[in-house]
Amino acid sequence: MSKLFTVAPDSDFTLANLPFGIFSTAGSAPRVGIAIGDRILDLAALATEGGFDFDSAVLHRPYLNDFIALGKEVTGRARTQVQTWLREADSPVAPRHLVRREEATLHLPVRIGDYTDFYSSIEHATNVGRMFRDPDKALLPNWRHLPVGYHGRASSIVVDGTPVRRPRGQVLPPGADVPVFQATDRLDFELEMAFVVGKDSTLGETVRVDQAEDYIFGLALFNDWSARDVQRWEYVPLGPFLGKNFASTMSPWIVPLEALEPFRVAGPEQSPRVLPYLQTDVPGNYDIQLEVTVNDRTVSRSNFRYMYWSMAQQLAHHSSNGCNVRVGDLMASGTISGRDPSAYGSLLEITDNGRSGSFLADHDTVTLTGHAGSGAERVGFGRCGGRILPAHPSSH
Amino acid sequence: MSKLFTVAPDSDFTLANLPFGIFSTAGSAPRVGIAIGDRILDLAALATEGGFDFDSAVLHRPYLNDFIALGKEVTGRARTQVQTWLREADSPVAPRHLVRREEATLHLPVRIGDYTDFYSSIEHATNVGRMFRDPDKALLPNWRHLPVGYHGRASSIVVDGTPVRRPRGQVLPPGADVPVFQATDRLDFELEMAFVVGKDSTLGETVRVDQAEDYIFGLALFNDWSARDVQRWEYVPLGPFLGKNFASTMSPWIVPLEALEPFRVAGPEQSPRVLPYLQTDVPGNYDIQLEVTVNDRTVSRSNFRYMYWSMAQQLAHHSSNGCNVRVGDLMASGTISGRDPSAYGSLLEITDNGRSGSFLADHDTVTLTGHAGSGAERVGFGRCGGRILPAHPSSH
Repeated sequence: MSKLFTVAPDSDFTLANLPFGIFSTAGSAPRVGIAIGDRILDLAALATEGGFDFDSAVLHRPYLNDFIALGKEVTGRARTQVQTWLREADSPVAPRHLVRREEATLHLPVRIGDYTDFYSSIEHATNVGRMFRDPDKALLPNWRHLPVGYHGRASSIVVDGTPVRRPRGQVLPPGADVPVFQATDRLDFELEMAFVVGKDSTLGETVRVDQAEDYIFGLALFNDWSARDVQRWEYVPLGPFLGKNFASTMSPWIVPLEALEPFRVAGPEQSPRVLPYLQTDVPGNYDIQLEVTVNDRTVSRSNFRYMYWSMAQQLAHHSSNGCNVRVGDLMASGTISGRDPSAYGSLLEITDNGRSGSFLADHDTVTLTGHAGSGAERVGFGRCGGRILPAHPSSH
Repeated sequence: MSKLFTVAPDSDFTLANLPFGIFSTAGSAPRVGIAIGDRILDLAALATEGGFDFDSAVLHRPYLNDFIALGKEVTGRARTQVQTWLREADSPVAPRHLVRREEATLHLPVRIGDYTDFYSSIEHATNVGRMFRDPDKALLPNWRHLPVGYHGRASSIVVDGTPVRRPRGQVLPPGADVPVFQATDRLDFELEMAFVVGKDSTLGETVRVDQAEDYIFGLALFNDWSARDVQRWEYVPLGPFLGKNFASTMSPWIVPLEALEPFRVAGPEQSPRVLPYLQTDVPGNYDIQLEVTVNDRTVSRSNFRYMYWSMAQQLAHHSSNGCNVRVGDLMASGTISGRDPSAYGSLLEITDNGRSGSFLADHDTVTLTGHAGSGAERVGFGRCGGRILPAHPSSH
């Protein structure tokens, strides 16, 4: 099969990965594909010719939701089948099924229902608490007892490569007691990962922490763009709103959780011990190396394993009151910072709130990348990038 | 036509109203209908037989979104046409198009994209600030400058009549410094109204305050159920989450904004003067009388006209940073309290945080109702009710 595609030595998209996404080519409709090396396997076309045990109609949609809703058993079997075929000399996969990635457009992979953002890195929460609130009580009393989270905006989540307009908003100038309306001058990124919910739960019922990963289809990179000055003025008492909801960017490929199984690790010790509904013996973190560049200059190297709260705990907490989740919901980790300043996941932290550096300038391009493993076992996420467009010249 | 339906003297559903909803009858699929007196006009069936200038397929969907997306000109013309027909002796409306309401099931009328909850009653914000924060600085510095809002959960919004399970959650017992996980014992309602977005805006662009009502299709009653003890422990710093997202209830009929035009009034004076992007000379409030009963006992009488921030201002603010809105998004007002304690819109306020009364008990039924005008000009919202089911006996 090697003549059908090339997997470069540093490719994110090895045979061990096989993430799902939505692509289109000139004159064709968006449909489901799988990234492999420098190609996209046209899963929709392949399935239409037979070979899978489900109705191929779900692959001819402009989002993954209906495919994901088939359940992990079905989607996992399809992926394993493709893995086998791509390894074999004799398989139904033909050149016409493999599209060059540079000839394809990648789309937002999921029709997102509800989007939740957590705040699960203890280093990030401590750094922000120190700057925005009391330096001596940076971590709030609830933080070690529950994975703090809030609801965000789904409509403004865009895919890698979509330009982001610098937002305008109310900010309180230093020393003033009346706000002004202006373009943010504290535009920031947040290095996050997000998981896509793969299974509906029932309103009024809970998802136990030990079942929670059954509800996680896969992961992507996520940039929760933030306007720090807008956020600071608005966020008390009901949380971030316009400081965050002007745009978030996600990577186009959803890496199924099973591809990340070899990289499962234990998270940091949780002290004090969490309440029983959040307790689990299963290691819930994943060793995924993350990097942020601004105009190709590396500004952060972090790792998803640093998270204090695991995805399973986030989901168990989210449903502990009976709140239901649905296929296509997106839950982001919150900024992923490490202890070392080189691992801080936002400019707020990297620049010490602007004291030792700048926030984002117009035309800056911010790109997140991430991968686990190496060589033929590398499981990467591709690119999650966006360029800043200047604010509109007048407000209204 | 009077033989086809009866409009009782106190009916919410006069010829001046004609709200849209989704209904089904035994053995038939959910579809679009219009409430009139004690009947539902089967708009889907009527349109299939002709007489409208749009494709009737949009009426054979289990949500109003595709109908709403046709635009106010089309939906308004359809409503006016129906109004004329229902007044005439000779019209295409036949007995087979008019279903008895007691024979129909009403469904959630809209497939909700993003749900935003505002906090726009100055009386409510002051009352809550007094109890949850500093009594002397009850209103936070930003409150009079912007309509404070936050993103809520769309998946758990249910229609009138859906039982609501008492949630469990983390609460901090008085005097303790470690939380426990238990059923809330401070379960509350919040009297709100919500509007349905009727038109998409573009990401990165704003909706001017004077254009904002073009983006509002119509209104419904909304109960933002709240677990006060859960909310109090979790809400700093990112806002309400599990204390709110276990359920919200909306009324089944969406009253188009044009039906409320006769009841347009000016809101309270805003002082200090708001920033230019929020300024408008058009009166933006609506005189809608609201009532809450608990087990048929009236506990609150309020009015939508009390809102400090208008819907137009909420929408202009929401999009002022370029955040896009989509057809089917829901934006709720926040609790609608008046100055007099008899007009407080939550038990938190009515009972002074439990000091002079109780929160909700298991099996209590809370019902919101509301209407503008009277007699043949009455425009009402029907019922927005729900009964409390006991918490599940064990957490997991």
